[in-house]
Amino acid sequence: MIAIIGRGNVATHLFRAFKNKEETCLVNPHTLEGLPADADLTLICVSDNAIGEVVKKLPSSLPLVAHTSGSIPISVLGDKFKNYGVFYPLQTFTKDVELNYKEIPVFVEGDSEKTVEKIKHFASAFSHNIFEADSEKRRKLHLASVFACNFTNALAGIAQNILKEAAIDKTVINPLMRQTLKKLDYMDAGAAQTGPAKRKDDIVINSHLQMLKDHPDLMQIYKSISDLIREQ
Amino acid sequence: MIAIIGRGNVATHLFRAFKNKEETCLVNPHTLEGLPADADLTLICVSDNAIGEVVKKLPSSLPLVAHTSGSIPISVLGDKFKNYGVFYPLQTFTKDVELNYKEIPVFVEGDSEKTVEKIKHFASAFSHNIFEADSEKRRKLHLASVFACNFTNALAGIAQNILKEAAIDKTVINPLMRQTLKKLDYMDAGAAQTGPAKRKDDIVINSHLQMLKDHPDLMQIYKSISDLIREQ
Repeated sequence: MIAIIGRGNVATHLFRAFKNKEETCLVNPHTLEGLPADADLTLICVSDNAIGEVVKKLPSSLPLVAHTSGSIPISVLGDKFKNYGVFYPLQTFTKDVELNYKEIPVFVEGDSEKTVEKIKHFASAFSHNIFEADSEKRRKLHLASVFACNFTNALAGIAQNILKEAAIDKTVINPLMRQTLKKLDYMDAGAAQTGPAKRKDDIVINSHLQMLKDHPDLMQIYKSISDLIREQ
Repeated sequence: MIAIIGRGNVATHLFRAFKNKEETCLVNPHTLEGLPADADLTLICVSDNAIGEVVKKLPSSLPLVAHTSGSIPISVLGDKFKNYGVFYPLQTFTKDVELNYKEIPVFVEGDSEKTVEKIKHFASAFSHNIFEADSEKRRKLHLASVFACNFTNALAGIAQNILKEAAIDKTVINPLMRQTLKKLDYMDAGAAQTGPAKRKDDIVINSHLQMLKDHPDLMQIYKSISDLIREQ
């Protein structure tokens, strides 16, 4: 049996993914009402800031406890529980957007080899892509995912705003963004790079910077990414 | 009949897309060998810097000439040809990566309403998504596409390098990037934004900046995009 503590996007999706495979319950992180004392795995799916608070309230007698955070080290669980670990799914979760769980990479860490195997066993009901990663490796995964996901979304937002200001339907860039990703199935991002910065085309670059002159924050982002591309 | 001048990614793909619909020929931009004098449409598919050189060498008697650039104004063709315009496909083209041409948005401009209709007629053999855009609007489209495509690819490259340094398979972030895009089919980028900057989680942000301390260029990109997200 798996107990999932949380009410957010990750908790909702993990509950949805596990409930057809294992006996699974979803527990409110504030009240912990109905928390089973003997779940084979208790998963803490709350925001980084709230993990410490939940740990304090949990009974230390739980058989196995894991958190799902990219940034929080395993040690946050070490003082309290006998068997503990991490179940980190590398994905962006939104309640209303469907996911193919089987392809989500899951990174597992445990206090012992036995714990790692136990968490991997549960993870295999969720995904086909299971890896081991210690806390240091997981921090790097999280950093990479900030660039690949959070910042990519921010760039899409900049593009959408430029289109909006020009009275152009924002979805016209979706095929372009899809193809940008598709290319990464065939080649490294370095080899796939195109555009004015790659061609060192200063006429176009300066014309773009001029268009951004009322948005110093966007100019800064344009310049710093263009400089990075030029130096490749 | 369509004559396509160029040897690069765009020329190769446009030739591939048109050749089953219309009589189409591909012409070397340096020699112009075999250029038909009477093609219904002559498409200049060369890099921005080379358009002027090709225009100089073309006979002014060509029935209709268009270029395919996002940044070059239509006026580059106006001094020489009687009927001229722009056929701008908003996509990233790589010779060896397949494309669904029908979904690519094409932005058309022409010296007259009649020219616009002619170019749209040819474009309809290529795509289902045809729009009109003047040179100013097209510049903004190009700027948006630099953020959405070129810069997104650069961020993917940063993520791949972080994973490489941590000895993690670079493809583990692909499902995450795909989902990041998929969310944009359901919501605005603003609503889809997640991550430490969105949560104003300074502990994680500072830990990430610390991890980037040997890469001041990446620190600058991390900071400037995080600042943008925080201010939303």
